[in-house]
Amino acid sequence: MAAVRRILIDCDPGLDDAAAILMALGARAVLDLVALTTVAGNVGLAAVTRNASGLLALAGRTDVPLHAGCPRALVGGTLRAQHVHGEGGIGGVDLPVGVSARSEHAVDAIRRIARESGPKGLTLVPIGPLTNIACALVMAPDIADCLSEIVVMGGAARVGGNVTPVAEFNFAADPHAARIVLESGVPVVVMPLDVTRQAVVTEARIDALRTLATPVGETLAAMLAAYRGRTGRAVLHDPCTIAYLLAPDLFRGEGVAATVDTASDVSMGRLVADWNGQTGRDPTVTIMSDLDADGFYDLLVAQIRALS
Amino acid sequence: MAAVRRILIDCDPGLDDAAAILMALGARAVLDLVALTTVAGNVGLAAVTRNASGLLALAGRTDVPLHAGCPRALVGGTLRAQHVHGEGGIGGVDLPVGVSARSEHAVDAIRRIARESGPKGLTLVPIGPLTNIACALVMAPDIADCLSEIVVMGGAARVGGNVTPVAEFNFAADPHAARIVLESGVPVVVMPLDVTRQAVVTEARIDALRTLATPVGETLAAMLAAYRGRTGRAVLHDPCTIAYLLAPDLFRGEGVAATVDTASDVSMGRLVADWNGQTGRDPTVTIMSDLDADGFYDLLVAQIRALS
Amino acid sequence: MAAVRRILIDCDPGLDDAAAILMALGARAVLDLVALTTVAGNVGLAAVTRNASGLLALAGRTDVPLHAGCPRALVGGTLRAQHVHGEGGIGGVDLPVGVSARSEHAVDAIRRIARESGPKGLTLVPIGPLTNIACALVMAPDIADCLSEIVVMGGAARVGGNVTPVAEFNFAADPHAARIVLESGVPVVVMPLDVTRQAVVTEARIDALRTLATPVGETLAAMLAAYRGRTGRAVLHDPCTIAYLLAPDLFRGEGVAATVDTASDVSMGRLVADWNGQTGRDPTVTIMSDLDADGFYDLLVAQIRALS
Amino acid sequence: MAAVRRILIDCDPGLDDAAAILMALGARAVLDLVALTTVAGNVGLAAVTRNASGLLALAGRTDVPLHAGCPRALVGGTLRAQHVHGEGGIGGVDLPVGVSARSEHAVDAIRRIARESGPKGLTLVPIGPLTNIACALVMAPDIADCLSEIVVMGGAARVGGNVTPVAEFNFAADPHAARIVLESGVPVVVMPLDVTRQAVVTEARIDALRTLATPVGETLAAMLAAYRGRTGRAVLHDPCTIAYLLAPDLFRGEGVAATVDTASDVSMGRLVADWNGQTGRDPTVTIMSDLDADGFYDLLVAQIRALS
Repeated sequence: MAAVRRILIDCDPGLDDAAAILMALGARAVLDLVALTTVAGNVGLAAVTRNASGLLALAGRTDVPLHAGCPRALVGGTLRAQHVHGEGGIGGVDLPVGVSARSEHAVDAIRRIARESGPKGLTLVPIGPLTNIACALVMAPDIADCLSEIVVMGGAARVGGNVTPVAEFNFAADPHAARIVLESGVPVVVMPLDVTRQAVVTEARIDALRTLATPVGETLAAMLAAYRGRTGRAVLHDPCTIAYLLAPDLFRGEGVAATVDTASDVSMGRLVADWNGQTGRDPTVTIMSDLDADGFYDLLVAQIRALS
Repeated sequence: MAAVRRILIDCDPGLDDAAAILMALGARAVLDLVALTTVAGNVGLAAVTRNASGLLALAGRTDVPLHAGCPRALVGGTLRAQHVHGEGGIGGVDLPVGVSARSEHAVDAIRRIARESGPKGLTLVPIGPLTNIACALVMAPDIADCLSEIVVMGGAARVGGNVTPVAEFNFAADPHAARIVLESGVPVVVMPLDVTRQAVVTEARIDALRTLATPVGETLAAMLAAYRGRTGRAVLHDPCTIAYLLAPDLFRGEGVAATVDTASDVSMGRLVADWNGQTGRDPTVTIMSDLDADGFYDLLVAQIRALS
Repeated sequence: MAAVRRILIDCDPGLDDAAAILMALGARAVLDLVALTTVAGNVGLAAVTRNASGLLALAGRTDVPLHAGCPRALVGGTLRAQHVHGEGGIGGVDLPVGVSARSEHAVDAIRRIARESGPKGLTLVPIGPLTNIACALVMAPDIADCLSEIVVMGGAARVGGNVTPVAEFNFAADPHAARIVLESGVPVVVMPLDVTRQAVVTEARIDALRTLATPVGETLAAMLAAYRGRTGRAVLHDPCTIAYLLAPDLFRGEGVAATVDTASDVSMGRLVADWNGQTGRDPTVTIMSDLDADGFYDLLVAQIRALS
Repeated sequence: MAAVRRILIDCDPGLDDAAAILMALGARAVLDLVALTTVAGNVGLAAVTRNASGLLALAGRTDVPLHAGCPRALVGGTLRAQHVHGEGGIGGVDLPVGVSARSEHAVDAIRRIARESGPKGLTLVPIGPLTNIACALVMAPDIADCLSEIVVMGGAARVGGNVTPVAEFNFAADPHAARIVLESGVPVVVMPLDVTRQAVVTEARIDALRTLATPVGETLAAMLAAYRGRTGRAVLHDPCTIAYLLAPDLFRGEGVAATVDTASDVSMGRLVADWNGQTGRDPTVTIMSDLDADGFYDLLVAQIRALS
């Protein structure tokens, strides 16, 4: 029997964040969500925190501690994605009112929980801008020893970006934070657009959720329908991280040294991978490139079913 | 009668940090040091925290809360200045053993104390790399309203740098943090090398401290003698911040919009001032350029005398 | 019957440059090589010019005007590739002594010949660093109208670089020049490492040249054997440009706006493509991605045969 | 008796360029103007070339060879200063129609004349963007040996810029070219805004020219009146270079290694000086800081008088 893995999701829901959070909650038998932390990203901090709370309530998991984090990026201006996720961040879908975030700041919670988890005892799953994780690692680099892995949604490796020709939203929204995380030495698994774009939302896949005929299934189906309606071609970026924790074999990738460009206007926020080991730096980052999309959606539906 | 001003010194002692801390403690009648926080800089975090503790003990002020902060800069590598301050950071001078730092992280303490201080109720005095202050402002930008001023030692405005041709140590050690602070919108007073280089340590000025014939005076005299012996031409960078709080008329400067270069190798960490208002940004930064050095040293000696 | 196309090859031979030049000379029925110009690159200017001259002599074409160009890049230091091409640039193979370069500078020759060629009358084929072409376009931007196309070997689009993790040699050797050319508005066809790496030199392919039993075939076979011996896995980067002129259907690619990063240390010299039209700039650059390698080598052997 | 010094002025007239050119022509006894070359800058290439020609005609020196140069900067966009110099570049003042520019490109003329001048036989005086000089040095670095000095108007050392907070027009208009020149190893004398701003145009100084009652004096007076009317506080940037050639003792400065920032948005085009020798690079650049303004204007008037 597989051991239960302690995870902390750092998120900015966000429609695909919602799917990731619900998927993780559905996988309770193997994933122990020790906390949910929020960060400004797709929409502002208040909205993402309200959404995160509503998602926990929807899944009947108001016991999961919720902590609000950084309302801004480290350096420079603010990037939002209301055009994708709607003004409120979850496509106008109604969620139950959940419990409030705890008073402890997300960055403090991350550090505390990491230490409580012991050596390699915690997996971080950041699916928004990496501001909270970066602050935690700068304030307390020693927590690195408590992290077994950081599984990040972010970056564009060989494909174009979705914010600039070369930069993906989460990395573009806080390039310096992304760089701090990728250069931290902690084993990082990156789910870039290259792989997440393979997780295409189709009408059939929405139907599979809807026909679960559960409140969670129906709500998530409504969200994905809103997502698809809004963007034409919707893909489930963030749940790739949870799918990887549940079934790593769905993914193929490569271990490299990697960083994020923080110097150049034209390359700002770009994931920079050392594919051939030319830098001599340790290959602590695994960049995924391929996904079994059908397997991914089967896995998603199975977890959502478990929440009914 | 002047109101007492609540200040928090964020430091990396450091020989000139030591002078600044002792000067502030001596000015107890007008400056209420509500906490001392430390950050890696001149030497590593453990050493600067031990030194800060020893300085509080030397001045009989073990009641001042001490909080250790970030042991590294936000982005990139580490810069230290052992060649200036000695391996241990205070020129090999012996300090009494002080009390330990509290368990609360400096960044948390800064946020908490700012909020407890109410609107414009706290003055921050960062005299090391700005990592702690930047983290606090990123985690909780709302504390800006609680800050009446940030009085920083850092940068080189019209003169050359002391780390690169254009960058001063505190800004070079964490250029991104310096940029975050200067762009925060909080009123910032910058004491760059332009002005601190005017606070030259001379034998006569050391003598003035030594002839106080007090433990603090003698210890500080020994530190400055070590500083001078080590660097040839020593100047008291950090105490300029405290002198400004006590006697702003000793200084002349100019209000501008300013930032710090974080993009270019050749300009990394450089203070960039918009002297002529070409950017259209608000002039929230006052960059000092001139100092009454005799007045400064008289003020320093007076505060140290008060500690006897 | 196909019209003869006027081309000017700007080169730094270089083993694969040699193959490109000989291939172009063999295609005399359809390609009129109006001049050969040289630029410092794989090895220094004197050596590449001597090699270019020897290649013309080997092919019995000392009538082709030869012009030496820039011995350095626009900005910054020098990059060479002796480890790939040998000290002298052509793998130690002996070439006949050719005629001297003319006194006219390559940059002047490029401008003059472009103007003499009339509207869209000339195709430039730069297969070294782009210094000469950039200088010509800066000195006389009006020659753009005389250029039907610039077919460049350079850059790495989706694959890693061969000089840094992200930069290919020709672009890394003069990133600013590459940027000038890609932003010039002239239709540019780029053969990046993505496609040139498909043109693998095999023993069988070398044999096909050797069994031509002609002086040119044998010399080129010797060069490619030296190339392969030196680098393990040799590929014919530069001849892709000539193959494209002769048989564009061997290639597949995409039209985009593109530039080269000249700002960031970590991305310096990187080809930056706007795959999804996010910049709104005109897609004047075609970046090739796929090659019919067998077709390519058949084409190469056919041209070399024609030189016997 | 002083030897006559061979000089080549590379210019973009421009009102202060006009003063510089006329000043040099007036100093014929000691300065041999072997050619005048033009570069796009204050206004476009056609206009600056027409102005340069008119100035030669005004001074009765249509024998001086005139060569048009680069109509654009090396990298990136175009910067013009019509708001300072008027649409046509010389404040709307009428000049006689001069002779046409020769067919030889300025960059070619600079290389040819440098070589004809022999070792250290030529002084370049660039008073516009440095595009021509940079191209010449890239095409033929060996001409460095023929240059005794390059006396440049450009940059801002300790004062703010006139285009951005940190960049002066000539350097901002082609930062890469300025960097190439400053890093060339040729002895460079830089007249930055720090010194040129001391050469203030006053009514009395205009009068001194007007009362010469010569055509050249009256035309220059009219130009300076137009300049002053247009900008409020006009200063004679460019003639500082000629004044330096005639009377170096009017200036004080410092020898340093220097470059120009070409990487950072916020520092683009900034003169970067290594005041304290921290880079270990050779101090080949003299940056002037002080001017005897009265002596400068006396010198100017004396040269203009000589043209009557």
